[in-house]
Amino acid sequence: MGDNSVREPVITLSAGPVAAYQQVLLGMARPVHYDFDPYFQEFYEQVVGKLNRALKTREPALLLHCEPAVGLEAAAASLIGPEDVVLNLASGVYGKGFGYWSARYHKEMVEIEVPYNEAIDPDSVAAAFRKRPDIRIVSVVHHDTPSGTLNPVTEIGKIARAHDALLLVDAVSSFGGMDIHPYDCHADIFVTGPGKCLGGAPGLTVVSVSDRAWAHIARNPKAPRASVLSLADWKDAWHHETPFPFTPSVAEVNGLDAAIDRYFAEGPENVWRRHALTAQACRAGIKALGLELWAAREAIASPTTTALRIPPGLRDADILAAAREGFGVVFSSGRGETKGKLLRIGHMGPVAEPIYATVAVTALGGALRKLGFACDVGAGVEAALAIIAAGR
Amino acid sequence: MGDNSVREPVITLSAGPVAAYQQVLLGMARPVHYDFDPYFQEFYEQVVGKLNRALKTREPALLLHCEPAVGLEAAAASLIGPEDVVLNLASGVYGKGFGYWSARYHKEMVEIEVPYNEAIDPDSVAAAFRKRPDIRIVSVVHHDTPSGTLNPVTEIGKIARAHDALLLVDAVSSFGGMDIHPYDCHADIFVTGPGKCLGGAPGLTVVSVSDRAWAHIARNPKAPRASVLSLADWKDAWHHETPFPFTPSVAEVNGLDAAIDRYFAEGPENVWRRHALTAQACRAGIKALGLELWAAREAIASPTTTALRIPPGLRDADILAAAREGFGVVFSSGRGETKGKLLRIGHMGPVAEPIYATVAVTALGGALRKLGFACDVGAGVEAALAIIAAGR
Amino acid sequence: MGDNSVREPVITLSAGPVAAYQQVLLGMARPVHYDFDPYFQEFYEQVVGKLNRALKTREPALLLHCEPAVGLEAAAASLIGPEDVVLNLASGVYGKGFGYWSARYHKEMVEIEVPYNEAIDPDSVAAAFRKRPDIRIVSVVHHDTPSGTLNPVTEIGKIARAHDALLLVDAVSSFGGMDIHPYDCHADIFVTGPGKCLGGAPGLTVVSVSDRAWAHIARNPKAPRASVLSLADWKDAWHHETPFPFTPSVAEVNGLDAAIDRYFAEGPENVWRRHALTAQACRAGIKALGLELWAAREAIASPTTTALRIPPGLRDADILAAAREGFGVVFSSGRGETKGKLLRIGHMGPVAEPIYATVAVTALGGALRKLGFACDVGAGVEAALAIIAAGR
Amino acid sequence: MGDNSVREPVITLSAGPVAAYQQVLLGMARPVHYDFDPYFQEFYEQVVGKLNRALKTREPALLLHCEPAVGLEAAAASLIGPEDVVLNLASGVYGKGFGYWSARYHKEMVEIEVPYNEAIDPDSVAAAFRKRPDIRIVSVVHHDTPSGTLNPVTEIGKIARAHDALLLVDAVSSFGGMDIHPYDCHADIFVTGPGKCLGGAPGLTVVSVSDRAWAHIARNPKAPRASVLSLADWKDAWHHETPFPFTPSVAEVNGLDAAIDRYFAEGPENVWRRHALTAQACRAGIKALGLELWAAREAIASPTTTALRIPPGLRDADILAAAREGFGVVFSSGRGETKGKLLRIGHMGPVAEPIYATVAVTALGGALRKLGFACDVGAGVEAALAIIAAGR
Repeated sequence: MGDNSVREPVITLSAGPVAAYQQVLLGMARPVHYDFDPYFQEFYEQVVGKLNRALKTREPALLLHCEPAVGLEAAAASLIGPEDVVLNLASGVYGKGFGYWSARYHKEMVEIEVPYNEAIDPDSVAAAFRKRPDIRIVSVVHHDTPSGTLNPVTEIGKIARAHDALLLVDAVSSFGGMDIHPYDCHADIFVTGPGKCLGGAPGLTVVSVSDRAWAHIARNPKAPRASVLSLADWKDAWHHETPFPFTPSVAEVNGLDAAIDRYFAEGPENVWRRHALTAQACRAGIKALGLELWAAREAIASPTTTALRIPPGLRDADILAAAREGFGVVFSSGRGETKGKLLRIGHMGPVAEPIYATVAVTALGGALRKLGFACDVGAGVEAALAIIAAGR
Repeated sequence: MGDNSVREPVITLSAGPVAAYQQVLLGMARPVHYDFDPYFQEFYEQVVGKLNRALKTREPALLLHCEPAVGLEAAAASLIGPEDVVLNLASGVYGKGFGYWSARYHKEMVEIEVPYNEAIDPDSVAAAFRKRPDIRIVSVVHHDTPSGTLNPVTEIGKIARAHDALLLVDAVSSFGGMDIHPYDCHADIFVTGPGKCLGGAPGLTVVSVSDRAWAHIARNPKAPRASVLSLADWKDAWHHETPFPFTPSVAEVNGLDAAIDRYFAEGPENVWRRHALTAQACRAGIKALGLELWAAREAIASPTTTALRIPPGLRDADILAAAREGFGVVFSSGRGETKGKLLRIGHMGPVAEPIYATVAVTALGGALRKLGFACDVGAGVEAALAIIAAGR
Repeated sequence: MGDNSVREPVITLSAGPVAAYQQVLLGMARPVHYDFDPYFQEFYEQVVGKLNRALKTREPALLLHCEPAVGLEAAAASLIGPEDVVLNLASGVYGKGFGYWSARYHKEMVEIEVPYNEAIDPDSVAAAFRKRPDIRIVSVVHHDTPSGTLNPVTEIGKIARAHDALLLVDAVSSFGGMDIHPYDCHADIFVTGPGKCLGGAPGLTVVSVSDRAWAHIARNPKAPRASVLSLADWKDAWHHETPFPFTPSVAEVNGLDAAIDRYFAEGPENVWRRHALTAQACRAGIKALGLELWAAREAIASPTTTALRIPPGLRDADILAAAREGFGVVFSSGRGETKGKLLRIGHMGPVAEPIYATVAVTALGGALRKLGFACDVGAGVEAALAIIAAGR
Repeated sequence: MGDNSVREPVITLSAGPVAAYQQVLLGMARPVHYDFDPYFQEFYEQVVGKLNRALKTREPALLLHCEPAVGLEAAAASLIGPEDVVLNLASGVYGKGFGYWSARYHKEMVEIEVPYNEAIDPDSVAAAFRKRPDIRIVSVVHHDTPSGTLNPVTEIGKIARAHDALLLVDAVSSFGGMDIHPYDCHADIFVTGPGKCLGGAPGLTVVSVSDRAWAHIARNPKAPRASVLSLADWKDAWHHETPFPFTPSVAEVNGLDAAIDRYFAEGPENVWRRHALTAQACRAGIKALGLELWAAREAIASPTTTALRIPPGLRDADILAAAREGFGVVFSSGRGETKGKLLRIGHMGPVAEPIYATVAVTALGGALRKLGFACDVGAGVEAALAIIAAGR
């Protein structure tokens, strides 16, 4: 509030940063402890242990003290060496974007690109390997947030592993909101963070790195050290007797700890279920409003974000502003290529609750109508309700 | 608490991360808003405005969403180009360390190194310029935290400016705790953060960049873009209509806002005064304990950290453990070169209060005595008290 | 969460305690200061000053360190003496209930009681005075929360004042959510608190006491002292040099301070407007669902709570449970006489936002339908939307 | 901060309200849930269960939603009937004060009063019973905070029980800081709260009531109902299916939950030990300063508060102000009869740590010296240190 001329939003249904759980916010207000003090060092090791339980992995989870885009840049810098042929899978803005980071480090890149409302076909990955058996690294985004679409990382992972390639998975906005873990998809590097489905703050990256990936990094002559781009700097930092290479973001770690505790207290399956049901109800409502989903088919629509096509003649900024002014509800626009083409409704963390699907439909419908787009909001809400009634 | 086998500390007198003010902790628990929402965008611009008021600068302050060591690495990567001759001033571990980052980017480095309990002599800087008029960039640490010593950045800045060189100042652990600002020392890049004297959390960097420095970065063909190491990515992000290049650390910005508000509510001069008085009292107490200050002379001892030599025959880890177990009080060891040689008592943020000088003397004296080192704790406390009585 | 077998609610639309603003929750986490310390004493006086600004009164506002029901009991005990004839106005459970407290202290009580979906007619008050000119005290509830109905306190106040009677107004769940203040209604005792429309916690009472009321209390031989039931104990406690008679609820005062600051930061008129619009939209939606409002006519329906009749054949507990299980949405049942007859939807504090009117309609409609009550939820949402569109 | 002309204190060593643990402050910032929602009702029952574990009792603990002085007034009002002869044991201001409340309800009071630096002798209690076998209720303060002295409640309890009298124990500022529980002392009513040794906020009362006491209340024709003074109103409120008679102070209950969790996480024995060691070190330091303890002998000095005589010629307000201005350290003055005669240093909650004993000695010594009282602060700190070294 205060000096701000803009009203504070009432309900944030963004694709991230997302509204955080109160438990996490209060977690971030815990004391800031000195990172070399044994209390904090032991606490940090415990947090890593909890992350391993959440990720279902054995190799100590890696924390990087920046947001996940930095984590992905660091993963590219650390993993991809000058001898590496990379297969980059681009079904959206983030997938495509990873290729630019890769380009700084790789020997050569093969890319499979599909329309940004589509998903990567595992067969095309298999075909790429047949053509280029020297592919050493495969990079893929699980949930390409700017499109709200999922890639079949489990199938892709099997193929990559069969060809002994390393798989890098961006699971930033899917992990914690659905049933996906590093081993599920044979990920060698699996990047996520607390600021999306875990309902935390956005300034931290969680990475799972396989032993194979660590070995590859160790052999990479260009892998950075003494740098924010180095994964290796932080490899052993999880151990309570190992000093931190740089200063960890103490408050963010406190918040992450609260987020993971909350995740387990509710039960991961319960968390995933309400994310899925919310998205399903939202999609039904959006369609009943007379709108079109962005995803080419519902099977690839993410349970954590719903993207919809902007009706012809309307502008994203106007719709966002109308929803904001009329209802205090925040949605996300597209990004890069998808900017101006779609709008996104986030279902992550505390708003991954079916009632918020009806809020989204109501506020979006109300906003569109104000801009002259005829739509049946009542029908939209009813459609969402039908899904909720069936799902509960 | 909870599962931790180590007791939570009672009083943290570290050299950073430091105990945060309650106002800042609660600031970090404010709602996480969506970074593209106009409310957050306007808020961000307001925070930058407050930072400018605190820094006494006109160029919009730059926020980087990582801890200040990353900010320094990014400053090196962005500012130092392949044609640049750098004069690196090394009076401590951090000053020396900057040279390693510089080495990745510069054409050549001239270095002035002094013993790590000493300060850089401005005359030596003038002499270096006479010898190497092609020096283009000067890098200096104001308060080299691992030594607890100050460099005369104001004098150094005058010389650099007179030679039209760009000055990069690491003021991470001095700004906010004493009277130093970018224009005071002709800094072209001035790096600080909320996690030291402002009593905030450590995951954010504040940078002041002069127009001259921005021009130099613009001319640097190797200056990174689309990278965590890029200053330029974030140059215009302060403006409420400019989208963020990557996700800002929303909670950390919330905390910073609270830290700056608190700084002004108390009054900067009042803040500096209590930092100085606390350090002065602490030094008096340390000497009266029969210990030796690390700084070659008191004039260069920092008002924000007091470093003392470890008495012969004792080990830093033992002293820290004894203070921790006996009193719940946390101190810092040295770092790199100074590790094992000195201990550090932080006077930053909420513990920059004279009473904590007596706490430090009491807990340190009690710990040393337990390890067999005879010292007069009563005399130490009395010496600190004499300073406090005179200073209030 | 944690051990709780019941899911934490998603959205609370209760008639109080209500969901608190985040600013207030964080206010309650400020340090607990010692009540005799000058810092707290000055802070307390400042809070009282802010309350006076909010109440638009001159006599220092009184804080009682218990919830408002205690405040009302204390007001009865303090004000009503053994010689007093009280006119008790009962249009609901709370109005009726005050008579029981009055009975402990008064000489005699005259009561005007109307059906609990009705409001007191000022003419009946005037008539009562004509019949019993010895009426000395009039007690009335502004918003009788268990009915969601308003009484015309301004008109009643004029009549009371004209007859030189003292007026006691329970404004617990109206002040802060609509345009009502002590002087507006000639209240001599005006009781409210932070836990309703101000969006705070429920453990504190704010009382405005006129000089006439203080004089009456001073003359009351039975007015308690050294008791939780004494107003007089706390009369001068607002002054920073006056010691507190008992321990104030420091954390609650901290929260109240944050609540008042927030109230002014948004602007009282803005706050009232969104309360009113939310209630209006909610009533329209409820009616379009095919439900009946409890209030005999909309003019007396409160802008801070909407009460609706439970359809024949349904039970309140079943509806509440269905809304809770299906949507995580919390409503209130009736209380006392109105229990089992009505349900209540709160519009107070952070949920006094039009979008929550649609949430209420959706969740209530969905719940009713699940219990076999046919209702057109779509029509309900559309009706609410029409009001919102017209009101913004 | 903000508008306050007085500096916020640095360290609060008061006798209550005391500085709260950060865990408790953050507990108070948890969501405010609706008291009739099943989530809150189940939570409330769980909190009562934890209290029973802490109190080591079987009868469901009673929560009253006001500070403990109200709890004591309510206990008097509920328990003491018009046929009851009360033996009031007065060794301090609070013990004496209880007699005034008793006087409103009892038939007759027998009082044993000792100087306020003394403790009640159990033999005198036995003698009173011999003389007046009709004594039905015995009231005693365990730790009479304004004197910092303990009464032998365990011995007194045995005598009361032997005579079939009911015992009311005020354990507000002892429970949680030392090894005392209702059954230990045969207490029939045992009053305490979160705002002292548990390091919580002051707005709540915890009462343990024996079945014998409930039976006596049930037989008391004057026991209040529908009143803040009624214990019976709240008797069954602990059960998750029982509605609350009035609104509970939700945020205070949230804070209490955090306080109890913290108490068990540390371990009660550990908590008591550090309270005792802090007080012992403080007493040693005070004596070495040349000051006199208030307690007639150290055996009756409380482990949770140290009271000391004000040296002749000095005024309490001046000493408090000097400690506050010189060091930001807050102490408590006396109260009532002890006001002006003694000062008090609290050792409760987070400051019940030995290092704060040295803080107290330093700040008090420094303050006294400033006022012209010669004292050897060094000796005081050394004396405290000697105790700490021996105790750890």
